[in-house]
This record gives sequence, C-alpha cells and structure tokens, in this order.
Amino acid sequence: MHDTAPAAKAAAWLADLGERLGRGEIARALELFADDCYWRDLVAFTWNVKTMEGKPAIAAMLEATLARTAPSSWQVTQASGTGTEPVQAWFTFATATGKGRGILTLESGKCRTILTTLQSLDGHEEPLGATRPMGVRHGADRNRKKWTERRAAEEAAYGNGADPYCLIIGGGQGGIMLGARLRQLGVPAVIVEKNAKAGDSWRNRYRSLVLHDPVWYDHLPYIPFPANWPVFTPKDKMGDWLEMYVKAMELTYWGGTECTSASFDEKEKRWTVELVRDGKPVTLRPAQLVFATGAYGPPKFIDLPGASDFRGEVLHSSQYSDGSAYAGKKVVVIGAASSAHDVAVDLWEAGADVTMVQRSPTTVVRSETLTELAFDTYSEAAVERGIDVDTADLLGAATPFALQPAKQKALYDRIRARDAEFYRKLEATGFLLDFGHDETGLMMKAYRTGSGYYVDVGASQLIIDGEIGIKAGVGIETLTPGGIRFADGSEIQADTIIQSTGFQSMHEVVAKIVSRETADSIGTCWGLGSGTRNDPGPWHGELRNMYKPVAQENLWFQGGNLALSRFFSKFVALQIKARMEGIPTPVYATPLV
Amino acid sequence: MHDTAPAAKAAAWLADLGERLGRGEIARALELFADDCYWRDLVAFTWNVKTMEGKPAIAAMLEATLARTAPSSWQVTQASGTGTEPVQAWFTFATATGKGRGILTLESGKCRTILTTLQSLDGHEEPLGATRPMGVRHGADRNRKKWTERRAAEEAAYGNGADPYCLIIGGGQGGIMLGARLRQLGVPAVIVEKNAKAGDSWRNRYRSLVLHDPVWYDHLPYIPFPANWPVFTPKDKMGDWLEMYVKAMELTYWGGTECTSASFDEKEKRWTVELVRDGKPVTLRPAQLVFATGAYGPPKFIDLPGASDFRGEVLHSSQYSDGSAYAGKKVVVIGAASSAHDVAVDLWEAGADVTMVQRSPTTVVRSETLTELAFDTYSEAAVERGIDVDTADLLGAATPFALQPAKQKALYDRIRARDAEFYRKLEATGFLLDFGHDETGLMMKAYRTGSGYYVDVGASQLIIDGEIGIKAGVGIETLTPGGIRFADGSEIQADTIIQSTGFQSMHEVVAKIVSRETADSIGTCWGLGSGTRNDPGPWHGELRNMYKPVAQENLWFQGGNLALSRFFSKFVALQIKARMEGIPTPVYATPLV
Repeated sequence: MHDTAPAAKAAAWLADLGERLGRGEIARALELFADDCYWRDLVAFTWNVKTMEGKPAIAAMLEATLARTAPSSWQVTQASGTGTEPVQAWFTFATATGKGRGILTLESGKCRTILTTLQSLDGHEEPLGATRPMGVRHGADRNRKKWTERRAAEEAAYGNGADPYCLIIGGGQGGIMLGARLRQLGVPAVIVEKNAKAGDSWRNRYRSLVLHDPVWYDHLPYIPFPANWPVFTPKDKMGDWLEMYVKAMELTYWGGTECTSASFDEKEKRWTVELVRDGKPVTLRPAQLVFATGAYGPPKFIDLPGASDFRGEVLHSSQYSDGSAYAGKKVVVIGAASSAHDVAVDLWEAGADVTMVQRSPTTVVRSETLTELAFDTYSEAAVERGIDVDTADLLGAATPFALQPAKQKALYDRIRARDAEFYRKLEATGFLLDFGHDETGLMMKAYRTGSGYYVDVGASQLIIDGEIGIKAGVGIETLTPGGIRFADGSEIQADTIIQSTGFQSMHEVVAKIVSRETADSIGTCWGLGSGTRNDPGPWHGELRNMYKPVAQENLWFQGGNLALSRFFSKFVALQIKARMEGIPTPVYATPLV
Repeated sequence: MHDTAPAAKAAAWLADLGERLGRGEIARALELFADDCYWRDLVAFTWNVKTMEGKPAIAAMLEATLARTAPSSWQVTQASGTGTEPVQAWFTFATATGKGRGILTLESGKCRTILTTLQSLDGHEEPLGATRPMGVRHGADRNRKKWTERRAAEEAAYGNGADPYCLIIGGGQGGIMLGARLRQLGVPAVIVEKNAKAGDSWRNRYRSLVLHDPVWYDHLPYIPFPANWPVFTPKDKMGDWLEMYVKAMELTYWGGTECTSASFDEKEKRWTVELVRDGKPVTLRPAQLVFATGAYGPPKFIDLPGASDFRGEVLHSSQYSDGSAYAGKKVVVIGAASSAHDVAVDLWEAGADVTMVQRSPTTVVRSETLTELAFDTYSEAAVERGIDVDTADLLGAATPFALQPAKQKALYDRIRARDAEFYRKLEATGFLLDFGHDETGLMMKAYRTGSGYYVDVGASQLIIDGEIGIKAGVGIETLTPGGIRFADGSEIQADTIIQSTGFQSMHEVVAKIVSRETADSIGTCWGLGSGTRNDPGPWHGELRNMYKPVAQENLWFQGGNLALSRFFSKFVALQIKARMEGIPTPVYATPLV
C-alpha cells in the first residue's frame, strides 16, 4: 500500500510537524513525538551543539527558538524502513537565515529522534561546482594581479597592519580542516603552528605510526583521498597530504609560530594575540580565537616517587619518536592505551626489552574486527551502496549520545564473542582487559575520556607471546636507581621509563595562553558527563565545550580525530561566519560549566 | 514496444556480433556493419591506436587479430537513441588478455561506428577501491621498513645499480600522468625533467598564463580537481597541483635532470640513457623510453633576413616570461596564434607598444562561446547529468577522426553566427581570420597541426580597439637596425622582436637525443595526414606516432593537452605494462612513416 511506504509516512509526519511549527503550536508539535524522544540540533535552531532529551526539553528549546528560527520548506528527500525497522528519513528545511538538512526516525508513527543541522547561510553559500570561481578575469587589465601575486599580497598583509577575522591556534588536522571551511566561506583566517610545516604534527610522531582508522573514515573535506590511497595511511604520507592540502586550499598557514598570550577586549570584541613567528614577535587582533591544539591538550605526567634517584631517562610518549637508541636496553612503558602499545611495539622492533606497566584496564579491539564490524558506513562496500563520507557522517550524527551506549554494547557483545579466544589469551598474560564501565567498548571510552583503549594492530600478539612484558594491577611504590619497585615488593629494572600517561584537557592550553581564570570559567573540554570513571557528571549529552560557544565569548575549541574534525569543522565555520556577517546568533542554553 | 528500445536493439546487435566473431565468421560479422563504417581500436584488438575505415579495412584487421584476441562476453551496459537519432550503446567485453569497454552507434540496425578499448590486463588490475593497498602490515616485525624508508630506498636505488623498466623524458603534465598510470600498474618508472621541480613547466611560462580550457576538461587521473577549483586554472596553481600530485602518487621524479643521449641495444632490448642530474652524469638502462617533452617539440625559429643588422633583441615566445622590462618599449610579436596573443596581452598590460605581425590566418574563438557550445560533456551540467570526466573522454573517443570535420563544421557554423559582430570587428582591423581549410575550426587545426588558433581571453578586444597593432598578410623583407621592413615597402620600428612561431615536431627531440637516422625512420609526430596546410597526407586517421608503437621499437611519444595526456596515458601505460609482463603484443599494421 502506497501510504504505508516509509517515504510517504515520513512525508506526512514532516508535513504535520512543519505545519504545527509554522503556526507556533509547540504543544501540538510535541504530540508528534514519542515519550522517549530526542532532538539533536547542530546550529540550526539553537546556534549551539545541543541535544534536547524528552518532551519538556524539546518544548523549552522551541519556546526559546521557534519564532526567530522560523523553520519552513520541510521536505523528505529519502526514506527507508520496514514493518519491523523504524522509519528513517532524510529531509531538508529552511530557517530564517539558512538551509538545513536532517534525519528523523519514526516508531509507531511518532518521532523517536530528530537531527537538524544548518548547512549554509543564505547569501553566503560556498562557491562550489557551478558557482566556483572563474580563476581569471578575462579581458586585458593593466592593473592585473596574477594569482601568485594576489596570494602573496594576502599572506604578507597579516601582521603588517591587517588582521584576520579568525585566528586558529594549532595547525594539525583540526586547524587545517577548519581553516579550509573558513576559506570557503570567505572568512579571513590565519592558522598558527609551532612546527615548521603543515603535516609535521604527524611526521614528528613515532616512527612506525600508521592511522588506526581506515581511509574511508579519514577523508578531509573538499579533496577526498583517491581510490588508490592505502587503507591505513602511514604518518609521513598523511603529513605530506596535509601539507599539500594547505596549499591547494590556499590557507594562510604560519609554521614555526608559537602563541605566547591572548587577551580579549570586551569592548572592542577583539583578541590581542602575541605570537613568536620564526623568532620574531608578531601581534594579531582577530575577532575569533580557535584552540585546535590537539584533542586532549598538553602531555600529562604522573608523579613518580623517587624519580630523582632514578639513574635513567624519563620521558613522555609524545617526546618519543624512534626506538633505534634503545636496542638492547630495558625500557618500561607506563600506561596501556594506544600510545603505550604503539611505543612498546616500536621499541620491541628496535630490539629493546620492553615491559608495559598497566595501571588500569584497557579496552582492546582487533583492527580487522573493528574494520569489519564497526565501520560499515565507512567502507568500500558503503561507497558502492552510495554512502559517501558526508552521508555517513550525518547518519552517525543522527543517533544522540544518550542512545549510543545500547548500540555500542550490542556491537561489543558481537566483537567479544567473535574474538573470545584472542581475549582469553590476552587476559592469560595478566593484561587487564575491560570494555568500559558499562561494557560499551572503545567508542564510548573515546567520547567519555579519550583514553583507555587500543585498536590492536600487532602489540597484543607480542604481549600474548611474552615478547612484551606486562606488569598489571600493582601500584608503583617508588623509582629506584635502577628501575621501579611496586607496592607488592616486586621490582623491575629499567634504563628508560616512558610515560604513556595521556594528555590534559584542552582547557589547560587556555590557562597557559589566556588565563587560569578564563580556563576555569570554561571548565574542561571533551567528555559527555556520563558519570563514569574520569567523565564526571552532570550529563551533558554532547562533547563538553567542543565545537560550540563556551563561557568565554569569541573562543572556540576544535579537535578530535579526523572524522570528528571533518564533521564539526563545518558547524564551527558556520557559527564564525554568521558572527562575521553580523547575522544574529542567539545561543540557546548557556554553556555548561 | 520493448524490442525496439535502444538497449534491446544494441544488445541484439552486439550478441550477433559476438556470436559471429566467436565462430570466426568475419564475413558474416561484416554484414552487421553499414557500408560507411568505422572501427576505432585502442589496444584491445590491434595493440595499436588505429581506426579501420570501411569494411575491407575492418575485415583485414579482423583477419589478422581475431583468433589471438578471442573477444567474448560482449555486454551492453547502457544505451540511448530515439527514432530519429542513431542508437548509441556502451558495452564491455573481454579479450584473451584483458577487459575492454566500448561504444557503438547503430543506424538502421547496422553499425556505423564502433570503439573498442582495452581497460585492464587480466591478473594485473590496478589496486583501487576495495583492492587498494593496506598501507601497513599489521603485526610486529623487527625488519619493518616504514613507508618513508621504503620510498627513500626505492628512490635511492635508481642510478645506483637499479634500472627502471621505463624512463620518461619530460616531467610536464604528459610525463606525470603517464608516470601515475605506470605506478598504478606496478611498472618501475623514472621521470626526468630539466626544470628543478614538478610544475615548473607551468610556473616558468609567461606571467599572465591561465589555462584556456575549463577545469572539467583538465582533470588528472585518480585525483580530480576539487569542486572549489577555479574554472580556469592560473599557471602557478597548476604548477603546485602537479608538484603535489607527483608526491601523492609516489612518482620517482628527477628534477634538474637533462637527457643527453640514448641508444638502443637491439640484442639486450634495453636503452642506454645518459643523463646529467644536478650536474652529475648518471646512466640508466630502461627497457622502454618515452618522449613526453611537450606536444610539439623544440621551439621553431624562422629565418629573419638582416637579423644581424637589428640593434634590438630577438627571442622566442618560449623564452618570454614577464613584460615588466618592456614598459614604454616597442615590441613586435611575429605570429598570431595562442602564444602570440597571450604574449601581446602580457606586454600591453606591462605598458609596451605592441604590434603583432600575422603571417597567415588564425582561427579565433571567444572563450565564453567555446565553454558554452563546445564543452557540453565537460561542464558542471554534464557532471550533474552523471557524465564524469572518464565518461566524457570515452564519448569523445567514440567519433573517429574521419567523422569529426562534419561535426566540427556544424559547431563552427553556430559559433560564427553567434559571434558574427565580434568577427566583423576583428576582421575590420586587418586581422586575417579563418576557420581552417574546410571551415572546421579550432579543434581540427589542433589535431592537424597544433597551431594557428587562439581561444580569445581578451587579446581580440585589444586588437579591435587598436591597442595591439596588427600588420597582416605582408611578407617580411628584412630586419633593419631599428625594426622590420615589409615586402610592400612599409616599415615598423621595434626595440624587441618576439618570435611566436611555434614548435618543431617532437621527433626533432629524438634526433637530438637518439639519432637523426632514428628520428627520420620514425617521421614527424602529430597531425592526421589530412592533406590540409602543414598536415600532409597520406591520411592516417589517428595522431601520427602518438601513444602507440613507432618505427623504433621500445620508444613512445606521450603528449598533448591535459585531456589528451590524461586519456591516452592509460593506453600507453597498458602497452608498456603488457611488454614488461611478457604478454604477447603483436602490433597490427606497421607504423606509418
């Protein structure tokens, strides 16, 4: 029957929603929702990144935003669903200021989840495809500036009287992708990076590093990796690609530049940012300041009692690059998450005698298993089904964080059953294995704390085979001149100790550059407020302080892996562009502290 | 009626062809063709680039190639056509050695044209998409070489004992695209280029140069230009893209390298190639040698009587880069094709007093008109209709050269009508305008001689306005100390004379590097043998000596604009790969001399 087809169901539901919202009938609109419902909004209604959970929260959001958002032109573009599966529909809509796209799910005719995202600002659409630039003004012109001259003039102006509208601190993937989005939107931006060249943030890392996520998950916007690109990108190849990308996208990128301080003038609404570029001081006065200094902030060192007695070297994993100096040496790696495993393998390959000191349990998933079971929308098969990376990103965003643990637990139940023998062998070594507080696995750990997991690309077999030693579940009592003594009285010898103990919150970078007071007013970054270990509540429902307005105005955080940086850079860029154009951006819900 | 649908018609016809060829019934197969028929084959049947015109030629080709080609699995994939239009169908097929793709047209149920192309060699398919490389061997490995180490070792080996299978002389777009295709096919190749860096062949040209063809026509294989790329690429941006491309595709590219000589050992079937790399001699011994030194060979200077009397400077347009030294000077540009027009505009923009000496008529087309009327399959609209660049390329190749003049004449009739007023004004200046020997316009001139045309991006208006002077149709009698005296006794003053007089055939490069004897045995490159001015017969039906076996074995010519380089690089690469793998490649039809 035609009227029960998913597209027709979704179209009827959306027409109802549109009509009721159009009349300002919020209570009647809420009748269209299931009791357990979620509305995730990315910048379209709230000028925020925000999930409203349940009818009261949705009602409150609509009361505050509906009149000024004036949504219209709701249109289903695609739908799926069967008798047993919920209807899932893609749709487009318009607001008072732009165009949007979303995904909704219906269960028994009522809306369980809806995602609304702003995609473009009216009158400020990106020049792409048919509206791309011409590249040349035909006709003769005695004052013609050729392309290199125009680019050079643009580059030379900053720091010599001209200020960018936006300054991005940190020129890794997160800063670069945001820079590309801003460039496309015509927002003057400068990216500053302490390393000499774009891509060095990858090149400078440990020798054997290869991306743990497959290529389909890692695309940069505008210039996707080609079809011959390897599944797992080697770090230096990634570095070269980023360097090329910066040039092709015509970004203003200052390598060899450190940011020493930034202060905000509340009256002028501009930052004064002090930089040291190639050893020389430069001051820029941007309106917007973005911290894109890495997902997790500065290295975190743990306090090691007796460290002054230790005769060897102690370093942080972020300082480690190459095992060649450690052949034949005894090296202890403290920590058991991704970097710890990678560094341990690198050392073992170089011929070191490696022991990993595991202080808390780790979630381990074999790379092959993850690629096969968890990346179904980011794969060659998905591409063949017509699911490109942008489609996959929006699909992923359609599930609110609150509903993800159940999905993830089901996935990890399958993963644990499939690799039971592998996990049995790994635990037999004494390795402390877990799947998170609520058995939800790697991805939830990543969102909650960004730590405590490892995608196995080889280290686990070395641990199983006893090639990499494991010392787990026993506290470090003290360092001795020759190694480490544990709480149980046991000792291990060490020539070198490498702390793979993670990173501090990004807001520590703000403390260093802006002020402790500003950093504390903002609070920590990342985490969902899940109330699990290292992710204290209250429940936030989105990544804390990321990609959205924070307690300090005109300050933003951009970061995460390639996929999150890619997806959210679009929304960060739209928020900044709207402010530059003077489009009203009333933020719904004050930032959580 | 279902059976008259284009796809069904085409499928029935192709099934008939497949069956008759399968039985070796050549005469019966020919019954399926119209009297005025064409079979264009790119490497699939002939291991050559060859168009058979008429039934006797097709019969002769099939007699020689059918048994060893053993075509099978003919399958229509797509078809179009109405009662009035001929049926056009895309199809796939298999041969004894690989897979192919083609396009055929049927008129009144009989085949008018058929294109067969080899797309891949069985067992040597390109690793793309689902078969792309992993990028890392998971698992620990004490002898692991990381990606940069492997790449560095590969690069260092050549010239230190290791030889590439293929050496490409010339690292412009043609050499680079072929290098990329060979890399994908696993053929060890080195590209040598006299300029320091990839992209310099564009960067070093005159200041205001911008591609005259739109972006949709200019894509490189594997990494298409992104959607924000300008329609007309500025030369330096093109240079940067090529440099990036070489790195991303992992090509071995020796900049700063000149090839001084090459000789072929008939017994060993290897070349001995003497190079000077960064001032040091290097010898390489590749099996295959490709000349990709530019479509048209070295600069062509014309003899100017009295040149020794002339007090000013005489240079070739290829030596010209920037007009800034010519402000206020009198400059005469000899020639009236693309470079002459571009150089004249560049000089005018710099404030020079410019006169163009036109020796023979020029075909001029306004860029806007060309983009609108001639690039219908290379446009944003085409992309939206699902015609990507590979589809457009194969469509273009489906019309044999013999049938192109009629199509092109119809196009130019429209162009001349549309821009009649523009052409009237241009001719009123004395400018000699033509549309080729048979009124077929720019593209046929490009194929026949590669000269005598200009895509107007601004110079014509300057000529119409009298800003660039024109001296046309009068022979140069002699240079004088201060300028040029013409056959009619008139004189013009000149501080500088720039010869925009084109380029010699690519076979002149062979004369310089290999030997005059080898060059003469090969004969000139380019041109169709149309019997029109500068393209003497006999009729060849394809571009002479380009992209296919020539009189000297293991020597190839690759070149042309971005589109031709892109399309044919695939077939050059397949021919070379087959030879490397020892796949028999009996070439049908000895190369024309």
